[in-house]
Amino acid sequence: MPDLAGPLPLGATIGILGGGQLGRMLALAAARLGFRTHVYCPDDDSPAFRVTDRHTHAAYADRPALEAFAHTVDVVTFEFENVPAATAEILSGIVAVAPDPRILAVTQDRLTEKSFIRQAGLPVADFAPVADRRELEQAAARIGRPAVLKTRRLGYDGKGQVRLDAAADLDTAWTAIGGAPAIVETFVPFASEVSVILARGRDGTMAAYDIVENVHGDHVLRTSRVPAAVSPATAAEAGRIGTVLAEAFGYVGVMAVELFVLRDGGREGLVVNEIAPRVHNSGHWTETACHVSQFEMHVRAVAGWPLPLPLRFCDVEMDNLIGNDVNGAFDRAAEPATSLHVYGKRDARPGRKMGHVTRLKPRKDSPF
Amino acid sequence: MPDLAGPLPLGATIGILGGGQLGRMLALAAARLGFRTHVYCPDDDSPAFRVTDRHTHAAYADRPALEAFAHTVDVVTFEFENVPAATAEILSGIVAVAPDPRILAVTQDRLTEKSFIRQAGLPVADFAPVADRRELEQAAARIGRPAVLKTRRLGYDGKGQVRLDAAADLDTAWTAIGGAPAIVETFVPFASEVSVILARGRDGTMAAYDIVENVHGDHVLRTSRVPAAVSPATAAEAGRIGTVLAEAFGYVGVMAVELFVLRDGGREGLVVNEIAPRVHNSGHWTETACHVSQFEMHVRAVAGWPLPLPLRFCDVEMDNLIGNDVNGAFDRAAEPATSLHVYGKRDARPGRKMGHVTRLKPRKDSPF
Repeated sequence: MPDLAGPLPLGATIGILGGGQLGRMLALAAARLGFRTHVYCPDDDSPAFRVTDRHTHAAYADRPALEAFAHTVDVVTFEFENVPAATAEILSGIVAVAPDPRILAVTQDRLTEKSFIRQAGLPVADFAPVADRRELEQAAARIGRPAVLKTRRLGYDGKGQVRLDAAADLDTAWTAIGGAPAIVETFVPFASEVSVILARGRDGTMAAYDIVENVHGDHVLRTSRVPAAVSPATAAEAGRIGTVLAEAFGYVGVMAVELFVLRDGGREGLVVNEIAPRVHNSGHWTETACHVSQFEMHVRAVAGWPLPLPLRFCDVEMDNLIGNDVNGAFDRAAEPATSLHVYGKRDARPGRKMGHVTRLKPRKDSPF
Repeated sequence: MPDLAGPLPLGATIGILGGGQLGRMLALAAARLGFRTHVYCPDDDSPAFRVTDRHTHAAYADRPALEAFAHTVDVVTFEFENVPAATAEILSGIVAVAPDPRILAVTQDRLTEKSFIRQAGLPVADFAPVADRRELEQAAARIGRPAVLKTRRLGYDGKGQVRLDAAADLDTAWTAIGGAPAIVETFVPFASEVSVILARGRDGTMAAYDIVENVHGDHVLRTSRVPAAVSPATAAEAGRIGTVLAEAFGYVGVMAVELFVLRDGGREGLVVNEIAPRVHNSGHWTETACHVSQFEMHVRAVAGWPLPLPLRFCDVEMDNLIGNDVNGAFDRAAEPATSLHVYGKRDARPGRKMGHVTRLKPRKDSPF
């Protein structure tokens, strides 16, 4: 893969794979640094298309379109982790891609992802691979109940997952996930969920945001809060875990690590749930509450620009606007100390992330 | 002029006249609220074109282009005060324009502007109109020396101005301003310059930012600081002056009022210098340091959306990057507690505003 000769000069073009809200917010951040962007997306209603210098509306398997795209940009990055490996390969034959697309092979498959985390010496829920119906029997027996059966690939927002309670029937579960290659994982009786969002630069510099506490509903992120209600030691450990993972991969860009918080009496522990090799929904508050957002931080990392320590001005609580929630945007805009972001998607389909609202609260220990 | 039937719905399109950095930052802010933008500009290297859904590259006198533009947008606003009156008239025959373009007639002419300010009961430097060489004699005699001879129209960043010191020759001065209609104005021995940036909504709601102290060099804004080094009473009076002017006009949108601070012993006074009926260079720090920027505030006002009290997280010092200053952007990006914004202009011509840098400092009396 070609590498950047040095920091991207002003006016250079950053290619972005994926035109959803993350691609859109990356494009907005790139613009503020004077970079141009070219967004590539198969979806013709891509909100990122509306804020970018150029866009290509083509399939991820369209080799001529990918090659043409690659020749117009100085570096490529992506807004999501399900970029097909072949797509990344075509692009990285022509132009620098950051983060290194090999991270996609790691995180697109729960088995390689969990193995990578374990190899890095970090805690994950016990897991066993399931190639077929017969292995499901063995895996379920070894892991015990309760457990979760998860497809290895293309799982997000709770899709491709079945809980295996004591009474759960394995045939039903196997059918529910479509008989796809899977893993069985110990169910983690977590007290709460947190995420760490951090950037690693081309020179190895790290810049981390404060740990976020996340609340999911129907497997979709509903609310993120900072600071997270965890001990300082747990917050520090979450940061260390993020750093270890970014270092282990030699990662360049922003990544998010989702973690489960375990609580046993007065003791807290952490288990890594998954890695998102991209900017992350639980970091949207950084756009309002920090002097450099996760989007700008990712652009800086990918461009070989400096990564400053992000200053957080206030405490926050961010709510996603999902589906018809977005119809309340006008009313939310009237709330004091509230920041609104609407993604400009055409249709407010149920479950679709349409925007977010960040409520700002005084920060007691503010450095500012 | 057609008026908005109510608040702009999500996905509506805001037309922006002018494609410079102000238009660009307005477009970026509009995008964050889920609005589309259509930028109209005669300059083919318009940085706003690169972050907008649609753009029209045509002259301000191009009636068919203006009409086509007007029919694609739900409301029109402008990034600068020198939109020709005929342009505004064509547009406002078709679509709502905010602020009301009659403000342009007021502020494009120093004589009507000063008269408007005086009629609002606010302090301005004494002035006298100059229609021709003969009136210059009389005006100069009445106003006394030192004074400033300024063309009535198209003056900005110090262009079209000549200082009339005790020894100044009127023939030379008259030639220097090209013999255009002008005013002679008492020279104000100001101690410092400040600006107030405030928004007024369609329902009369006002939202003001903290007073800014400005330092000019070669008649171009170099540095803006918040808080301004003025007494609380002076800051409050500046805010009152802004409010009176916005109310007097029935203004909708963000306006900036530039003021001179006079200091006589321990006493401070204010004199209004000029009104900018638009977002303003001295408010660029609001993008990083406030929860709602001047750009978003303007978009909200124009769209009939709520105007919240803007929270300021920190103290700031903003430097413009002028001409080749922008070549230092990479180094500035490495400074801690610093926010960088580069406008994406192609050529760094001398004197051209290419970007800005905002240094953030702890705020002692922070509400956050």
